[in-house]
Amino acid sequence: MSAGKIIVYGGRGALGCAVVKHFKANNFWVGSIDLGNNEDADVSIVVSKDANWATQAETVISGLEAALGPDKVDAFINVAGGWAGGNAKSKDFLKSCELMWSQSVWSSTITAQAASRFLKEGGFVSLPGAQPALNGTPGMIGYGLAKAAVHQLTKSLGDEKSGLPKGATAVSILPITLDTPMNRKWMASADFSTWTTLEFVAELFHKWTTGTDRPASGSLVQLITKENKTELVID
Amino acid sequence: MSAGKIIVYGGRGALGCAVVKHFKANNFWVGSIDLGNNEDADVSIVVSKDANWATQAETVISGLEAALGPDKVDAFINVAGGWAGGNAKSKDFLKSCELMWSQSVWSSTITAQAASRFLKEGGFVSLPGAQPALNGTPGMIGYGLAKAAVHQLTKSLGDEKSGLPKGATAVSILPITLDTPMNRKWMASADFSTWTTLEFVAELFHKWTTGTDRPASGSLVQLITKENKTELVID
Repeated sequence: MSAGKIIVYGGRGALGCAVVKHFKANNFWVGSIDLGNNEDADVSIVVSKDANWATQAETVISGLEAALGPDKVDAFINVAGGWAGGNAKSKDFLKSCELMWSQSVWSSTITAQAASRFLKEGGFVSLPGAQPALNGTPGMIGYGLAKAAVHQLTKSLGDEKSGLPKGATAVSILPITLDTPMNRKWMASADFSTWTTLEFVAELFHKWTTGTDRPASGSLVQLITKENKTELVID
Repeated sequence: MSAGKIIVYGGRGALGCAVVKHFKANNFWVGSIDLGNNEDADVSIVVSKDANWATQAETVISGLEAALGPDKVDAFINVAGGWAGGNAKSKDFLKSCELMWSQSVWSSTITAQAASRFLKEGGFVSLPGAQPALNGTPGMIGYGLAKAAVHQLTKSLGDEKSGLPKGATAVSILPITLDTPMNRKWMASADFSTWTTLEFVAELFHKWTTGTDRPASGSLVQLITKENKTELVID
């Protein structure tokens, strides 16, 4: 018998793969949603990056219906999203806003909608925030505004009238920099001891899913890493 | 000779019309951007509501090029946007998120891009925020997350590396309820003495455009109205 069921949105990214592996190792049934399959997951729901918001949502909802039948899940963990720089003067300014929006906010609103239907009462939802977006982000405007939208969505989901099942907890994690192969490649001379490891985040999700040390619903949880230790600043 | 030039984005809405009239009465040249013409404006740039983000931006930029020639403007005042309710469980949840996003955030990012090119040094930009979006908005999730994105964009534009011209000031106004005919129609039994009048907001924009009592760039300016008096809470 499995320990429970979870859905990882963005299950093929660096963090998503770590989360899928961690929950599989802890005996969970795991569904992945992403632009491609995650072979470690029990089920992969594949959305097309060329599909619009509504079509991606339909793919996810019908995929979940087919995968779950009458079952509900213990957690929706959304770790989808990417990064793009640029200020208001950049040639690709609107393009980067649009990309950031579709990656972070489409996936987060679809997660909210799916959770309203497929999450158990008392279940857990995590959305992908970003610590820098708590302030202005002039060098990465599209990224910052999309993450700020995710933060405010999280606060809305923290209210009992949000449409989530009774007793559900919704939070955002707000990392500064995650220790991924891609970040190591592009920021090779950075101080890695201030980066948050994927394993730490995966274990955090596992604790919260199983009910240990859950923050209040609606919380923004900053992940502040110094000298290879990560502290949570919960707001 | 005119007192200066301004662009009103959303110049055909209730607040937009009031702003256009107020600046015209104060001898400004006024350009309007909206889904239709504003006959009181010196120039109207008309965007199609069926056009996507990039196409709307192209229409605005080429319209400004044609209208302004080599001139630059004293202010971009964006008062575009609408309202939609709904929580994560609502049938039209994603549709309302998409509508709120396109009305508030497309217009605000296009304003930022246009201001980076057509605003004078030391000029003024205002974006359309909303006081309720400082917290969760479970009954109007799409509205809240779009406004939160506008707030964070404003903070980004407040930084000198945002791409705006040197010395520019960018703020958001965060009303609670504006005293418009539409709001009077839909909330006929509300206490109108707590609503902010359009004339107050138009005069505020006029003061800020001409350099009087401007808040620091990046500020979110809450408009708190009690007993028919509006106070500014600046953050």
